[in-house]
Amino acid sequence: MAALEQHADALVTSDDPQHPANLICELCRKFYTLGWVTGTGGGTSIRKDDKLFIAPSGVQKELMRPGDMFVMDFESKEYLRRPPVLKPSACTPLFLAAFTLRNAECCIHTHSQWAVLVTLLCERKASESNVFAISTLEQIKGVPRGYGPEKKGNLGYYDTLKIPIIENTPHEEDLKDTLEQAIQDWPDAHAVLVKRHGIYVWGKDVAQAKTLCESLDYIFQLAVEMHKLGLPWVKE
Amino acid sequence: MAALEQHADALVTSDDPQHPANLICELCRKFYTLGWVTGTGGGTSIRKDDKLFIAPSGVQKELMRPGDMFVMDFESKEYLRRPPVLKPSACTPLFLAAFTLRNAECCIHTHSQWAVLVTLLCERKASESNVFAISTLEQIKGVPRGYGPEKKGNLGYYDTLKIPIIENTPHEEDLKDTLEQAIQDWPDAHAVLVKRHGIYVWGKDVAQAKTLCESLDYIFQLAVEMHKLGLPWVKE
Amino acid sequence: MAALEQHADALVTSDDPQHPANLICELCRKFYTLGWVTGTGGGTSIRKDDKLFIAPSGVQKELMRPGDMFVMDFESKEYLRRPPVLKPSACTPLFLAAFTLRNAECCIHTHSQWAVLVTLLCERKASESNVFAISTLEQIKGVPRGYGPEKKGNLGYYDTLKIPIIENTPHEEDLKDTLEQAIQDWPDAHAVLVKRHGIYVWGKDVAQAKTLCESLDYIFQLAVEMHKLGLPWVKE
Amino acid sequence: MAALEQHADALVTSDDPQHPANLICELCRKFYTLGWVTGTGGGTSIRKDDKLFIAPSGVQKELMRPGDMFVMDFESKEYLRRPPVLKPSACTPLFLAAFTLRNAECCIHTHSQWAVLVTLLCERKASESNVFAISTLEQIKGVPRGYGPEKKGNLGYYDTLKIPIIENTPHEEDLKDTLEQAIQDWPDAHAVLVKRHGIYVWGKDVAQAKTLCESLDYIFQLAVEMHKLGLPWVKE
Repeated sequence: MAALEQHADALVTSDDPQHPANLICELCRKFYTLGWVTGTGGGTSIRKDDKLFIAPSGVQKELMRPGDMFVMDFESKEYLRRPPVLKPSACTPLFLAAFTLRNAECCIHTHSQWAVLVTLLCERKASESNVFAISTLEQIKGVPRGYGPEKKGNLGYYDTLKIPIIENTPHEEDLKDTLEQAIQDWPDAHAVLVKRHGIYVWGKDVAQAKTLCESLDYIFQLAVEMHKLGLPWVKE
Repeated sequence: MAALEQHADALVTSDDPQHPANLICELCRKFYTLGWVTGTGGGTSIRKDDKLFIAPSGVQKELMRPGDMFVMDFESKEYLRRPPVLKPSACTPLFLAAFTLRNAECCIHTHSQWAVLVTLLCERKASESNVFAISTLEQIKGVPRGYGPEKKGNLGYYDTLKIPIIENTPHEEDLKDTLEQAIQDWPDAHAVLVKRHGIYVWGKDVAQAKTLCESLDYIFQLAVEMHKLGLPWVKE
Repeated sequence: MAALEQHADALVTSDDPQHPANLICELCRKFYTLGWVTGTGGGTSIRKDDKLFIAPSGVQKELMRPGDMFVMDFESKEYLRRPPVLKPSACTPLFLAAFTLRNAECCIHTHSQWAVLVTLLCERKASESNVFAISTLEQIKGVPRGYGPEKKGNLGYYDTLKIPIIENTPHEEDLKDTLEQAIQDWPDAHAVLVKRHGIYVWGKDVAQAKTLCESLDYIFQLAVEMHKLGLPWVKE
Repeated sequence: MAALEQHADALVTSDDPQHPANLICELCRKFYTLGWVTGTGGGTSIRKDDKLFIAPSGVQKELMRPGDMFVMDFESKEYLRRPPVLKPSACTPLFLAAFTLRNAECCIHTHSQWAVLVTLLCERKASESNVFAISTLEQIKGVPRGYGPEKKGNLGYYDTLKIPIIENTPHEEDLKDTLEQAIQDWPDAHAVLVKRHGIYVWGKDVAQAKTLCESLDYIFQLAVEMHKLGLPWVKE
């Protein structure tokens, strides 16, 4: 058993800053500063080859260390490493949805206040409360157009960015079905907003997931400010 | 006397970053960045075994050093260490209330502007000005449900978070009676807002107190933004 | 070819923190913190003697390293160094406009949300939507008066600062003609706002471009807040 | 002359972080992060014994080094050290006013946007546009009551904080007369707001000036938010 544990610890021990266990810690320190993972909220997972590295539940995200990571075998969904004391992230089934259905390699979940406010503003609308839409902003060009060879590159300036919004559930893992449904219904989406909760964002690699998450958060903050100033989100 | 002083200094001297005297300094540097202890405002105390470690009054919180800490014997309430020059925190009787009545091990007092604005918005209401209430937000799940075995875990998504608000007094130590009364009247509360002043937050350990403080501050900021956007705090 | 590559790498290798390749990295880390280059947005270029140093396209600006820089010969406009993998910045023709037409030595492009909001507020106005104007603020004194010996120094407190606003285009490089036109039409301008996009700012050296960029961003944020509070931008 | 220069350089060379030349650099880095000295704005001066240490004009405040400091003999008002290239701060006569008339040992000048917005909101009022007044906030207790033995300590919770506002002038040094007049007219003031410009704050030592500056900035930000939310500044 001691040998097994040593083997498991080796999975998260590396001098390479690009190792997923190190990278998740570095990302979460940044996300803490951005206000995305306040009070142990949010989560991050990276898929590397046949393994998933997942930040644990309920920890101070800015203080995480590589040894806190859960490691799961992607095919069998069995844990290769479970840190004693810590609990696996309730986001795990949702990360899996993005990894499986969209072949993503990184999935980020934030509690960004701007994301929450955007869902609240959409909720109040009589119609189309299940989608956030905005157009004609340069930063939209930071959002991938979709999947597959004919959807290469990012959205254009005149495009309308649409992000589906799903209902929140009392238990995070119960979001799985509606998140998967949203991924099916919105085949181009790289992100799903969760009402009064936050956002799930994924990408083909860490850089895409992280920079997309930044671009979207920028757009949500801008959208809230635009609303305060009486400026419409979709250009007429 | 030199021997006594040496003995007292040993109470706050440690290489362990988890030692309360080190931890309070680290926390206060973070709180300064978050805008919670601006201009020497706010305070923090940790109880470890039979000793209380308390940040002094009137110092620049981001510059504090372990040697600035007061140490009090929890049972006798006598100071085991009083740094010369510095004054004990006026929050001390309030920290004691949380430690004694709620068996807390960490108590944090902030002057967060969002907390103050929330009390001002509640004050203006004709009724129920002595409680802040908000519901149906994921971040509410960062707040403990209460005390005792049957109140294990945290509030749920559909629960309404309620934080009592007490009147401010000219002298901080005079908040003691009303704070203690609020603790009695709100047996589940882990925090009390003080009108036009800030908040006291406590927890069973440092991690709980600090992350709860973050979750509440997140909720207060969201509440102020929701108010600006005409969104009700409690979902109808 | 190996020799050529070594020669090219020498162009961006220096221990001097003031070397353009080092300076651009340092600036972009700062700009990331200021929210100016979120999600790989924005860009920066420095001209040193007969060479241009240009941050690449589509990279995380806070993580850039000197080895990521493109180097261009200013006269021939040919690349002396192209990092493999990376793409040259789409801002390059716009940086060239400032370097060529205004003899600038540094040009900064940000996606500042305040800049974007100011263009949105101007867009809504029936008249003069192609210029942002504000007066009677001390920070205006951080803006150069213009070019040439008789326009020495900066604007005065009672002056009205005017920044031209140009339409955005789907492809950044297509901004070149209108940016050049704006530079011609506004012979004193050190900056051009791009609608729903951001701003281009330049200066005779790095310090002037960077501090001007800060002063303008400060003014844009103030302008948005003034608008929320019903305060006119130009003093009557 | 080389000997003279060496002597002058010794005035700003010290390993002690509390040496004024080091302290001003440290403070200005902090002030930059707080948005108080954006774009070379603002300034800081410390009086130590018979010498004044003054940050230069027009430099990037977060990059300042001890060698950039001007040193003035307090009695003769002659420079003991003038760094070549750099210009003395236009704030110097205003710092001198606080040092001379109020026996201050530190004076801070910021371009805080909250301070500017507060002066704009006061300017719009029909009456009393020359004073900012606010009451019944805990943070007011961070403001000294005045000068002299009978004004010991700080304002109380129920007190009304009043900060005089003076008109701005095209040239900073021309503020001297009105600032001195305001100091005479408001014998208890530790700060003077300058319309559409910023604030001058002073204290008996660095800690008092800096923490007062923080408390006031906190109050100004709160005041702007209160105004947005329709909450009166002075409690009725």
